Amino acid sequence: MISDQLNSLGIALPPVGTPAAAYVPFVQAGKLVFLSGHIAKQDGKPWVGQLGLNMDTAQGQAAARAVAIDLLGTLNAACIAAGTTLDGVKRIVKVMALVNSSASYTEHHLVTNGCSLLLADVFGSKSAHARSAFGVAQLPFGACVEIEMVAELA
Amino acid sequence: MISDQLNSLGIALPPVGTPAAAYVPFVQAGKLVFLSGHIAKQDGKPWVGQLGLNMDTAQGQAAARAVAIDLLGTLNAACIAAGTTLDGVKRIVKVMALVNSSASYTEHHLVTNGCSLLLADVFGSKSAHARSAFGVAQLPFGACVEIEMVAELA
Amino acid sequence: MISDQLNSLGIALPPVGTPAAAYVPFVQAGKLVFLSGHIAKQDGKPWVGQLGLNMDTAQGQAAARAVAIDLLGTLNAACIAAGTTLDGVKRIVKVMALVNSSASYTEHHLVTNGCSLLLADVFGSKSAHARSAFGVAQLPFGACVEIEMVAELA
Repeated sequence: MISDQLNSLGIALPPVGTPAAAYVPFVQAGKLVFLSGHIAKQDGKPWVGQLGLNMDTAQGQAAARAVAIDLLGTLNAACIAAGTTLDGVKRIVKVMALVNSSASYTEHHLVTNGCSLLLADVFGSKSAHARSAFGVAQLPFGACVEIEMVAELA
Repeated sequence: MISDQLNSLGIALPPVGTPAAAYVPFVQAGKLVFLSGHIAKQDGKPWVGQLGLNMDTAQGQAAARAVAIDLLGTLNAACIAAGTTLDGVKRIVKVMALVNSSASYTEHHLVTNGCSLLLADVFGSKSAHARSAFGVAQLPFGACVEIEMVAELA
Repeated sequence: MISDQLNSLGIALPPVGTPAAAYVPFVQAGKLVFLSGHIAKQDGKPWVGQLGLNMDTAQGQAAARAVAIDLLGTLNAACIAAGTTLDGVKRIVKVMALVNSSASYTEHHLVTNGCSLLLADVFGSKSAHARSAFGVAQLPFGACVEIEMVAELA
């Protein structure tokens, strides 16, 4: 079960965060669940920084992993709303990662692995997802990473 | 009815704009309607500017609201093509907002509320959407905001 | 048949590239196929450059066309995995193009036509897709263009 997997990783799912603006954390349409872009947080506050300026790739990966855990908290809530659990996830479909990036930073794909590898640890083969990762000029609250996700329920 | 709601808001739906390049304004796949990225326009021309450089958050919100009205015009056309009206929209699924942003501007989420709040005024609880908002280096024609949307038909 | 169309255009579909990180090239969910962001390549290596800095619009269009051919190689693999061929594509649904862009470059839509027009040459009316195109601060490996795509199978 996914809950066992989370326990073995020492991950406690966070509650769904309150969006900072006029939207909701997730929407289900048919079997697809669309998760809003989640910004990286540290100690409950935006994880501020820019890759290539004041953060390195390893720090970016840690931030992307933190986002993945928050995304799982939201996906868990979406599963509950749909009358199931994380075990009812058929697969992770798609991840889009926005990396707050200096003009010369080019390892957005490695940063994003911080998210993708956590998903693999939790969901195994169901985690294999399509993905885009790229560098953006700036993010809400100055966050270093923002990630949105699409999952399919069984 | 949505048309009453639009009237009470004093909003006249624009006709669908002609894409500036080799694509179409919307595509329906199953129950989902995918709307192309719409850039902000003012007096029919691209609304040029950059948040943090020569536009403030309130101006960005006005631009995002203008995009939302254009998106509704396109969604209306998609509904007609599907043999229904805007009352046939089950819900707004997802909004992605690209904000033309200086290196230090961090209120993309507030800018994007200009779109999200208009959708709420028009669609009420059906408007609750997943969302990503972020800062981009530059946009086609130098526009200040570009927004794409996914809606679900009933 | 699509294969005849490809032959007449002198296009040999490439094999699916190996993702540079922890994800897969495509995922099918229902009838939709989500293709990962593909970066432009030249001679098998990342096509490095930035529009407005050291590449012009025509060069960007050539890069976007090259990405489209790689996307078709991946879409072909997705079709085979689904037990069909490119003739089983109902339509191209959506294209998102990320253009590595200087602060002043504003022709992302024209660059992206390099992809859209190739899709039109190959798929004809089935190619009419929704689209977003925008300028990003930087891309993985310093690539000049990255494009992701959604297609619908019949």
